[in-house]
Amino acid sequence: MATGKINVSVDNIFPLIKKFLYSDHEIFLRELISNATDATLKLKHLTSIGEAKVEYGNPIIEIKVDKEGKKLHIIDQGLGMTEEEVKKYINEVAFSGAEEFLDKYKDAEKDAGIIGHFGLGFYSSFMVADKVEIITKSYKDEPAVHWSCDGSPEFSLKKGKKEERGTEIILHIAEDSTEFLEDNRISELLRKYNKFMPIPIKFGTRTETLPKPEDAKEDDPAPTQEVDNFVNNPNPAWTKQPTELEDKDYKEFYRELYPMQFEEPLFHIHLNVDYPFNLTGILYFPKLTNDLNIQKDRIQLYQNQVFVTDNVEGIVPEFLTMLRGVIDSPDIPLNVSRSYLQADGAVKKISSYITRKVADKLNSLFKNDREEFEKKWNDIKIVIEYGMLSEDKFFEKAEKFALYPTVDGNYYTFEELQEKVKANQTDKDEKLILLYASNQEEQHSYIEAAKAKGYEVLLLDSPIISHLMQKLETSKEKLSFARVDADHLDNLIKKEDTQISKLSDEEKEKLKTNLEEVIEDKKYTVQLESMDSDASPFIITEPEFMRRMKEMQQTGGGGMFGMGNMPEMYNLIVNTNHELVSEILNTKTAKKRERLINQSIDLARLSKGLLKGEELTNFIKRSYEMVK
Amino acid sequence: MATGKINVSVDNIFPLIKKFLYSDHEIFLRELISNATDATLKLKHLTSIGEAKVEYGNPIIEIKVDKEGKKLHIIDQGLGMTEEEVKKYINEVAFSGAEEFLDKYKDAEKDAGIIGHFGLGFYSSFMVADKVEIITKSYKDEPAVHWSCDGSPEFSLKKGKKEERGTEIILHIAEDSTEFLEDNRISELLRKYNKFMPIPIKFGTRTETLPKPEDAKEDDPAPTQEVDNFVNNPNPAWTKQPTELEDKDYKEFYRELYPMQFEEPLFHIHLNVDYPFNLTGILYFPKLTNDLNIQKDRIQLYQNQVFVTDNVEGIVPEFLTMLRGVIDSPDIPLNVSRSYLQADGAVKKISSYITRKVADKLNSLFKNDREEFEKKWNDIKIVIEYGMLSEDKFFEKAEKFALYPTVDGNYYTFEELQEKVKANQTDKDEKLILLYASNQEEQHSYIEAAKAKGYEVLLLDSPIISHLMQKLETSKEKLSFARVDADHLDNLIKKEDTQISKLSDEEKEKLKTNLEEVIEDKKYTVQLESMDSDASPFIITEPEFMRRMKEMQQTGGGGMFGMGNMPEMYNLIVNTNHELVSEILNTKTAKKRERLINQSIDLARLSKGLLKGEELTNFIKRSYEMVK
Repeated sequence: MATGKINVSVDNIFPLIKKFLYSDHEIFLRELISNATDATLKLKHLTSIGEAKVEYGNPIIEIKVDKEGKKLHIIDQGLGMTEEEVKKYINEVAFSGAEEFLDKYKDAEKDAGIIGHFGLGFYSSFMVADKVEIITKSYKDEPAVHWSCDGSPEFSLKKGKKEERGTEIILHIAEDSTEFLEDNRISELLRKYNKFMPIPIKFGTRTETLPKPEDAKEDDPAPTQEVDNFVNNPNPAWTKQPTELEDKDYKEFYRELYPMQFEEPLFHIHLNVDYPFNLTGILYFPKLTNDLNIQKDRIQLYQNQVFVTDNVEGIVPEFLTMLRGVIDSPDIPLNVSRSYLQADGAVKKISSYITRKVADKLNSLFKNDREEFEKKWNDIKIVIEYGMLSEDKFFEKAEKFALYPTVDGNYYTFEELQEKVKANQTDKDEKLILLYASNQEEQHSYIEAAKAKGYEVLLLDSPIISHLMQKLETSKEKLSFARVDADHLDNLIKKEDTQISKLSDEEKEKLKTNLEEVIEDKKYTVQLESMDSDASPFIITEPEFMRRMKEMQQTGGGGMFGMGNMPEMYNLIVNTNHELVSEILNTKTAKKRERLINQSIDLARLSKGLLKGEELTNFIKRSYEMVK
Repeated sequence: MATGKINVSVDNIFPLIKKFLYSDHEIFLRELISNATDATLKLKHLTSIGEAKVEYGNPIIEIKVDKEGKKLHIIDQGLGMTEEEVKKYINEVAFSGAEEFLDKYKDAEKDAGIIGHFGLGFYSSFMVADKVEIITKSYKDEPAVHWSCDGSPEFSLKKGKKEERGTEIILHIAEDSTEFLEDNRISELLRKYNKFMPIPIKFGTRTETLPKPEDAKEDDPAPTQEVDNFVNNPNPAWTKQPTELEDKDYKEFYRELYPMQFEEPLFHIHLNVDYPFNLTGILYFPKLTNDLNIQKDRIQLYQNQVFVTDNVEGIVPEFLTMLRGVIDSPDIPLNVSRSYLQADGAVKKISSYITRKVADKLNSLFKNDREEFEKKWNDIKIVIEYGMLSEDKFFEKAEKFALYPTVDGNYYTFEELQEKVKANQTDKDEKLILLYASNQEEQHSYIEAAKAKGYEVLLLDSPIISHLMQKLETSKEKLSFARVDADHLDNLIKKEDTQISKLSDEEKEKLKTNLEEVIEDKKYTVQLESMDSDASPFIITEPEFMRRMKEMQQTGGGGMFGMGNMPEMYNLIVNTNHELVSEILNTKTAKKRERLINQSIDLARLSKGLLKGEELTNFIKRSYEMVK
């Protein structure tokens, strides 16, 4: 048996880096600026502990585009490298300087906020450059070094001409990457990846207007000057303590994050935890619409202030991906598949921490200013209801603050609602019946009828509400939801007392026959009911069970298979105590009776929104005749 | 000046491979099966040209899970490796065997269908395994070799115990990757990545029922046997010539691609081009709904029958991402950013080739069986209209087959439509006015009125149709679209002849005052018109321009800024020649007149779908009174 050492063929490593290192070439700039930031933060740390005897000052990072020379410069004022260090850190690929540094100064990690973990970042320059130069001067008293390499594994090393401390990287941009010589493209990248990095980043200059001198004439133009243009905010809100920030600071930061967003967020949640994982961030509740799909992917994920991605799937529970804001955590493993991420212990903890913080915030908003909370309910309910459906822990916590609005604009918690309606809305089997409407306009006449009996009618109009009702009905005992148009009210909430019918059984039989003769194709099931004489003469209803199953099918799963395609089912309720019904019964001429029945059913259908198209046009024509 | 060679530190390369090689660890299986396929196809090529003097036979690739031993085996019957080759191809990372092979046998590339380009694929095993073994025997008469490596750069090499030609890879699955020891997970991966690879892949066995022997009793169970279970179709439809395939083959292949899809595709387009790029594939038109968002990302991209991704953004023009099917091309660069992809010359050519093929197919379907094409129009129009809007070349080609359906179920090309209506629908300024409805039920009374005048009414109901109308109006001269409820018909298509009003100017003035007294808050602009006496007495209209701008805003851009939030604007058209209007004018008592006007306006609003909620309930109550 022979043994040996695997030999990595250096001649092939550069094309491989180009192909494999990152699928997105634009990442090179993020990597180089991360390196420059590391070098600066390391120097800060070393001066703070007295190990580097130099002035730290106010170092910046500068990016310069030399379009004519086809060069891109990245210049920092960090600790720089000696010749020895260049040999060690640059000439040995895959040797992470940051890791060694962190080994040495372990406790410093958090304070210093060192970014690099991998050490290959520098080599990503070869994804976009034919040739790369490094001119660097260490904070130690040693001469500057000039390294250059054209992408073959051969490099050259000589003394450099550089007086100030720090490192300058010069990329000779390759033919296929000239997009990175455009100011606009570089600005775009800086905005995307470096907007909140901790060292000021200078890119170009901008014109600033100065105050006019006192002796200036009125027509004189105001004097201007060119000033350095900095592209980042090195101290974004999430890196601060909540105590340092006021409400307006959070709103300002929201505008920084989403400059194209005109609406203000409803409220924010500041995340800040050290143990057992490190995570900071600010989440915002925006106004949400009922469309579940279009508003995801707005939360940005950072690691030590470097933008990583805006896909937080698997890190944040799904129902919270509708929120906006920033999460910054060095503890989220990124080079694994999303499905693996969800099984990762640390990520699970992060996810449940975020869920808990959101629930706590909602609870305290509810407790501290209920009126405000009620005002916001319609804009946030979709997240809360989705969370109650998908996360059992959140369901429990939400019991305290989830609201049930009524058509009259009252907002009850479930407990309050139960207290309020139990006397009047408990049926003879001791079941509590909660009446609701999904659309105040479309179900107006039904709502009015329920209110006339002193019932509370909830207004539940989220797309997933039927799933939530189903969950509430099964998790609580003796509870049922019923939409106001699901049946005649006395059937929805059955009580002991029965109404007496004006009609005899024979008359009822005759009426039913009369009606069924006119209703074509038995479209409606006729149901005779003894109701108040001033209730509607005719009502069309749609049974709860079928309708809810259909709705659940349409909003993704649940319900029963195939229900989504079942035809709608309607009943025709006839109030046997209404004057008009007696009149129909007593009308002798078949033709006149038919006209009465048809016009009545048309009105009942109109009330339920079922009279359309040609039938509506004909109804209107007939009605104009009657107006005259 | 010193020069030197960059040294790749091998001790650090394995953790790096683990972190960087692919963000999705599951890719390792695709890579190993690709290698096994390469080895088999290379052998096929060498035997076919007589360079390998062995029997090619019917080689397969076998995958075995050993859950107890925590091992995964990938076994091929390809050309195998000699000790020299193992040293060369395995011990030297980043040396692509496939590339060298292709250099040698350049012309063979297409026929042999070699997959590997990179050579690092094998090392992806270390993303999921602690230790990897290779047992391999070359087709050349040399002893088998057994290589093994535990992820440090140390490997061992000894004689192997293997009699048959080929290579067996044994992965000792790592603690954090035990998911890859589950049959279900492996099945899932094989289905995802290897479903159409060219060498049969065996994974486990399945039970097959045999015919009963003739002397079996009725109650005897049918005998069964275990047979090899193959997971792939090595000859998918797109690798064949269109002439080899019938319509049913295409439909069968659609079911293979989308087993959960019950509906059949409407038609297919077979792509097949060698020069200037290599591309094969089959695209299908599914039935499309009007929702533009939910149906994308169904086209699968392959390279030499290996699944790569189902995100074809940037490769296929956006309007075609709603189609389904397969594209297979080795010429699409994959390790670049999507924005770079769109600028790539080869990809641009591919994209415009696909667009052209789709347009040609649509044109030939239209020409060869217009009746069938018309039947399918509603299910495909969204793609065609979207294409006309976004790609000017497609717009030109679509002139020939884009259809304009009428409410009566006729389908015209633009040219036919123009011919059909120009006599009756050209206004006095020689402008052609095309009338349309967006909803046959909601606009029923308006459609009837237009038809009564002999006008054709189009039924245009796509979500983006207002953008397309805008484009048609600007690209053609003297053309306007108008929705049937945009104004009184005589105003929509203005002709020389004028109707005479029954009312004098004073009467008109008085009528207007009467009406404006009753209409609250000036909600409607009253517009008196002399119309036919049997046309409706009152009509509510909604001016075209404002409505269309609002719609364009709502379906993404275009229109004018801020228009989306403008309130709706309506006019009340009063037919001064209608009997009811005269009656209103002649009614002396204010109260009775008010009742007449209110009931009339309610009927007009009902016709336009504007009478809702409490107003509707009150209208119905009033109407029940009138029925009695």
